Amino acid sequence: MANFDLMRRLALEEGGKILLLVMDGLGGLPREAGGPTELEAAHTPNLDRLAREGSVGLSIPVARGIAPGSGPAHLALFGYDPLVYEIGRGVLEATGIGLEVRPGDVAIRGNFCTVDENGLITDRRAGRISTEEGAKRVALLKDIQIPGVQISIEIAKEYRFAMVLHGEGLHGAIADTDPQQTGVAPLPARALEPAAEKTAALVNQWLEEARKRLKGQEPANMCTLRGFAMEPGLPKYRDVYKLKAACVAVYPMYKGVASLVGMDVIETTAHDTTQDQFNKVAQIWDQYDFVFCHIKYTDSRGEDGDFDAKVKVIEGVDAALPTLLDLKPDVLIVTGDHSTPATYRAHSWHPVPTLLWAPATHMPDRAQAFGERECMVGALGQFPATDLMPLALAHARRLQKFGA
Amino acid sequence: MANFDLMRRLALEEGGKILLLVMDGLGGLPREAGGPTELEAAHTPNLDRLAREGSVGLSIPVARGIAPGSGPAHLALFGYDPLVYEIGRGVLEATGIGLEVRPGDVAIRGNFCTVDENGLITDRRAGRISTEEGAKRVALLKDIQIPGVQISIEIAKEYRFAMVLHGEGLHGAIADTDPQQTGVAPLPARALEPAAEKTAALVNQWLEEARKRLKGQEPANMCTLRGFAMEPGLPKYRDVYKLKAACVAVYPMYKGVASLVGMDVIETTAHDTTQDQFNKVAQIWDQYDFVFCHIKYTDSRGEDGDFDAKVKVIEGVDAALPTLLDLKPDVLIVTGDHSTPATYRAHSWHPVPTLLWAPATHMPDRAQAFGERECMVGALGQFPATDLMPLALAHARRLQKFGA
Repeated sequence: MANFDLMRRLALEEGGKILLLVMDGLGGLPREAGGPTELEAAHTPNLDRLAREGSVGLSIPVARGIAPGSGPAHLALFGYDPLVYEIGRGVLEATGIGLEVRPGDVAIRGNFCTVDENGLITDRRAGRISTEEGAKRVALLKDIQIPGVQISIEIAKEYRFAMVLHGEGLHGAIADTDPQQTGVAPLPARALEPAAEKTAALVNQWLEEARKRLKGQEPANMCTLRGFAMEPGLPKYRDVYKLKAACVAVYPMYKGVASLVGMDVIETTAHDTTQDQFNKVAQIWDQYDFVFCHIKYTDSRGEDGDFDAKVKVIEGVDAALPTLLDLKPDVLIVTGDHSTPATYRAHSWHPVPTLLWAPATHMPDRAQAFGERECMVGALGQFPATDLMPLALAHARRLQKFGA
Repeated sequence: MANFDLMRRLALEEGGKILLLVMDGLGGLPREAGGPTELEAAHTPNLDRLAREGSVGLSIPVARGIAPGSGPAHLALFGYDPLVYEIGRGVLEATGIGLEVRPGDVAIRGNFCTVDENGLITDRRAGRISTEEGAKRVALLKDIQIPGVQISIEIAKEYRFAMVLHGEGLHGAIADTDPQQTGVAPLPARALEPAAEKTAALVNQWLEEARKRLKGQEPANMCTLRGFAMEPGLPKYRDVYKLKAACVAVYPMYKGVASLVGMDVIETTAHDTTQDQFNKVAQIWDQYDFVFCHIKYTDSRGEDGDFDAKVKVIEGVDAALPTLLDLKPDVLIVTGDHSTPATYRAHSWHPVPTLLWAPATHMPDRAQAFGERECMVGALGQFPATDLMPLALAHARRLQKFGA
């Protein structure tokens, strides 16, 4: 983890500008023995030039051998040890579908389920109804009013939804209401600590009202709640790094994590291309010290197992890169949050190719291109992802000397 | 250290099979400037092929600059931080000569000494009697009966022996009885904590009986006890990694450490060759998720200072390797517990050449052979030995993703 005490002590108010470009799931593996990885196969003249000029290395997201989810992987890139700062499931789900989660809020995951005439669960996933059917049920629940709390609720996918409670004195230490078996009734919300009793009572009022409204809506005629979690109260970029920071991402999940560390979230649409995203970075560049730009589709194509399509996404990023280079960032970091090799079709634990380009101070190495094997012999070596932020600040001349 | 909380949380019951082949003291140094190390000099076509196909790197057993003993070096390979989990000297000595040490047992090292007619020590090592003479004295002590405790005792070497106490409510917090000087009597066993008083009293009964039986057995006519230690209660492979694990080693010390982490110890004889050991691995392969195979003689020849003989041991391992490759392990790791350069004639602190071959997911690097200098540019980089187990589990698809 970036040592936050040290960062607070050494970080300067003024300095260079930092651009963090994350290609989700960037790292890959060869498709055939002796062949290139996705990044090695991609034609990337701009990234290769940056790699020749600057420093490359391999970043370890959480720990060797650990394949991270997107939440912990991004926390690590932002300098937060994901083994220390965990974002609760409810908060991840809620931010992931675009619900705002503020300090003091409680976020919750919900499942629609089927109950019989006696209220006993017959299907914990309501026959895996479609997202459309799920959204209809959510609509029935939207205007439930419970005194003392404002409630936001949105469909996630199929039988899953998320909700956020906003109000005074809320607490997230509440046990799941999903009994994890059929033939029994959903459990009432039960406080795990005295401080959560008020919140549990509010939730039970809501559940009783939800039950009435879902009656007759088979197969989704009831719901269970789980993953109760509070906004995690992460130290903020402004306080820790003295950075005014913004996020340009398309997927709500990444906007959510960026928001939790105190970045401004720039408006985007789901249809924004890489070039659109880079244009948005350019538009806001003057107003921020630090911009995080997140490209999703490297990961998506890796999870599809589509090696060639992942190569194409990388090539598209390279082609649009001049828009970012024209901004003349003092520090440009290009990396991934984790690896998603197309041959593996999932997040993996392999260290992630990383490029640090900061013309005033970067240490050139012998890398001739941006790729896994070039990164093995780079100036950055293999390092914990949480070390990236201190490095970025240093190259931006935003850290004082430690000690006299 | 492998984060055991994380391992317990993420490890899966099912997955691929892992083979850990340890050549003790594998790492070496060039005999002459510009020349190869032992591993580089050895003709190892099989290991070289695995290195070309898979990932190599250098493992740091305990910390940079620290030359480890065999106990801590193996704990590290097994994922246990040797600075956190120390195996007491008595337990190491006892397991090292094949005595079984179970939870709740107290293990002790003993020295024969010479006392004069007043019981004052005149030689703390009994004139360094031969192992044969030592064994004769141990035979006199074997059937000492102390109510409430079962005692096993065996000769170690020359004037040294080890013993294990087995019984209810034993405790190892007992000070050495060796006064560390001559001209004084051996000290009585003294409890360092109230919980050890009963054990100290039992030990003093035993010492009184030993004194009577050794009377007239000059120069070994008395003994002192030291290194009192309890079985260390290490987390077990089954609980932490969800692995059914076995050990194929010839020397009792390695069997002992493997047993302390919960591996089944496969029967071997002191005459087993490398090929014999590999055949035993093959025989039990179907019954285990993880097999640790330990080759001793790389270290022995290094300690002898015999460069050429160490090369030959490595070549013998390579020649027998097809027996292991025929098992088609999902993950094969070849490494050492530490370096024992023949030029240094002792355990050293140099990082240890390590090879990870896992065809479904290994990251090829530019290494063309298995040797120290090739490992310096490998995909694994330089890493703490304790990271090997998480990596092995990941490549065996035995770890879930961390977080969403």
